[in-house]
Amino acid sequence: MRRAIALAARGLGTTSPNPVVGCVVLDAHGEVAGEGFHEVAGGPHAEVGALREAGDRARGGTAFVTLEPCAHTGRTGPCAQALIDAGIARVVYAVSDPNPQAAGGAEVLRAAGVDVTGGFLAAEAARGNEAWLTATRLGRPFTTWKYAATLDGRIAAADGTSRWISSAASRADVHALRASADAVVVGSGTLLADDPHLAVRGDAARPRDRQPLRVVVDTSARIPADARVLDDAAPTLLAVADDLPAETAAELAERVAGRAEIVALPRTAGGLDLHALGKELYVRGVRSVLLEGGPTLAGAYAAAGLVDKVVGYLAPVLLGAGPAALGPAGISTITEALRLTVEEVADDRFGGDLRITARAASHDRLADGQGTGDTHGTNGTTGGAHRPARPDQSRTAPPQAADHPVKES
Amino acid sequence: MRRAIALAARGLGTTSPNPVVGCVVLDAHGEVAGEGFHEVAGGPHAEVGALREAGDRARGGTAFVTLEPCAHTGRTGPCAQALIDAGIARVVYAVSDPNPQAAGGAEVLRAAGVDVTGGFLAAEAARGNEAWLTATRLGRPFTTWKYAATLDGRIAAADGTSRWISSAASRADVHALRASADAVVVGSGTLLADDPHLAVRGDAARPRDRQPLRVVVDTSARIPADARVLDDAAPTLLAVADDLPAETAAELAERVAGRAEIVALPRTAGGLDLHALGKELYVRGVRSVLLEGGPTLAGAYAAAGLVDKVVGYLAPVLLGAGPAALGPAGISTITEALRLTVEEVADDRFGGDLRITARAASHDRLADGQGTGDTHGTNGTTGGAHRPARPDQSRTAPPQAADHPVKES
Repeated sequence: MRRAIALAARGLGTTSPNPVVGCVVLDAHGEVAGEGFHEVAGGPHAEVGALREAGDRARGGTAFVTLEPCAHTGRTGPCAQALIDAGIARVVYAVSDPNPQAAGGAEVLRAAGVDVTGGFLAAEAARGNEAWLTATRLGRPFTTWKYAATLDGRIAAADGTSRWISSAASRADVHALRASADAVVVGSGTLLADDPHLAVRGDAARPRDRQPLRVVVDTSARIPADARVLDDAAPTLLAVADDLPAETAAELAERVAGRAEIVALPRTAGGLDLHALGKELYVRGVRSVLLEGGPTLAGAYAAAGLVDKVVGYLAPVLLGAGPAALGPAGISTITEALRLTVEEVADDRFGGDLRITARAASHDRLADGQGTGDTHGTNGTTGGAHRPARPDQSRTAPPQAADHPVKES
Repeated sequence: MRRAIALAARGLGTTSPNPVVGCVVLDAHGEVAGEGFHEVAGGPHAEVGALREAGDRARGGTAFVTLEPCAHTGRTGPCAQALIDAGIARVVYAVSDPNPQAAGGAEVLRAAGVDVTGGFLAAEAARGNEAWLTATRLGRPFTTWKYAATLDGRIAAADGTSRWISSAASRADVHALRASADAVVVGSGTLLADDPHLAVRGDAARPRDRQPLRVVVDTSARIPADARVLDDAAPTLLAVADDLPAETAAELAERVAGRAEIVALPRTAGGLDLHALGKELYVRGVRSVLLEGGPTLAGAYAAAGLVDKVVGYLAPVLLGAGPAALGPAGISTITEALRLTVEEVADDRFGGDLRITARAASHDRLADGQGTGDTHGTNGTTGGAHRPARPDQSRTAPPQAADHPVKES
């Protein structure tokens, strides 16, 4: 199953709106006969690829799949039926399919006499599919906020200069993050200040049709005609307010004609309605978003409760002044703070920087594969048992000793 | 020698103005015969303790010492002579003594026919004695800035609340940091806001005479009469401006009478002259300072080039508003940034927080034991060969690829 999970990960960034799925088929003697993963929406499912590779050796064999095999016919036929047709005797899957359209594969298999086990390594597999699972449940993309800052939380010096706060290795890593996302989002402030390109380049570079969608939250339609995101390296979507004067909207359409799509969304007190943007992106098949800034937009995402994961590149640098990484997020007192759980700290691959990966503490349950509907599991281990959510609540608990009446003592 | 370095560390926080020193004596057969470390200024030196434990077994044996044995008579006799008297045949030491008064021990030993090797594991031993070595060279205390902040660099929420941003484990660790410092320094802003106590409590608690000196940079003499630092748990020093009106100075003296010492220092544009404070503390035997804040004072220390080391407790929390960890440090553009080298990242002992330890990049050479005057070394390995300073300069280098013209792309 671990091999199947690793195979699944190869599809990150190109399978949406489908999940990533990996499959390993063993023959009747327990030898690996075929491997497959879902590479791109519309392409063959993982099971089909693995069965094809296994050929006749699949008969009487076992299929390990990271997600419950689907039972419906979409652009490709149902995988449950393909497994039955291939003569597979046993199917072991990790996570149940939460998609009502696709679910039911386990029942179909059982009805055909296949021995089915669900929930095996569910937590690990769910983590590999966290974006798709979260998005499917919530009806909006899984959002990762990426930032690069100094140890004291600044993204630039007082005069606005910020060149090479983070190392070359950190900057290269951002392209890998982009490559695994369906869309990259920035605000108009960042667009105007930095004129970012937002396409995946370097080792992870890919053709236009597999590039993440570039999304600019441009409430007031300020994008310049020569912005780099308007080139043809990747598709681009501009989200503007739906109450713009007709003339402004028309001017914008003309300015970006043929180079970007425009979507008009409701305004909120803080800017654009980011929940509406999430729904809009979801409808377009976007299941994962990499939020690249700036601080104002990141603050608005945090205020809207839409930050699921944080990847911070911290440079061992102090500035003492300059813009902060995160702008106002509607948090005025400490009990309202957005609590995260650190998932990984890497300090040896980023040219002296630290890369900190953390998830919203409120997502701990989801991430651990709980609530994935693993009710069919016969002998599987459910995710929750592996790793209970950390008791982050202790942070807001009252002082433990009476002689510690002040915060710093 | 590693054992001797570990023994030396036991003295941290109580040996100043002396260095920490550890010594292991092997008998003529190479068996450990005695161990010692310098525990407290005025108490026996490491060599004397180890020789005492070894007794007659020292004859013909070898002494491993973390620092060149001293040749002068202070409150205790010269160690070089003690080693000769005990019949030690060979002395291996790590770091040469940079103190002109105490140096020369190696020559004394050689003159007496002892086989002497210097520079052995010098880098490692120098690191264990970094505060004392740096202080001795620069004539001011080695300064570690400690802060606790959110991932986005805030030390409190917008309304000033900050209780339990960091975990209980992080707060307990601060007491261990204090315990290894000779003085703890805060500014009057922190004093007035938090009324900190600043003494070492918990597992590392100790009697008054071994507590670090509590230092308040109180330029305008604002300390309240009931401030907790004025209790008798530890000695306290108030640093005020030397141009206070006589009446104000007199009032202050009366307010804290018998409970704190007062020192008057010149003002600078940023507040008090921190170089003058450093000299003043050095004269009083302080070799290491733990700077506990707040942001204004930390910024002033950074601006004065007086931050040698940084220990940051980063809580996986986002606030988006509130005071920043580091205040203005005289840095207006990115090329002036204070660059550090990360030394350690601990993410498993602090209740979910990260503890990041970094040193000023400009100190890399010092910390690696270079420039310690290890010219006597016959077959020792010098520190610099172990671990070259990281090329942090690369950070300010121009972009490597022509297609990366903006900082975020």
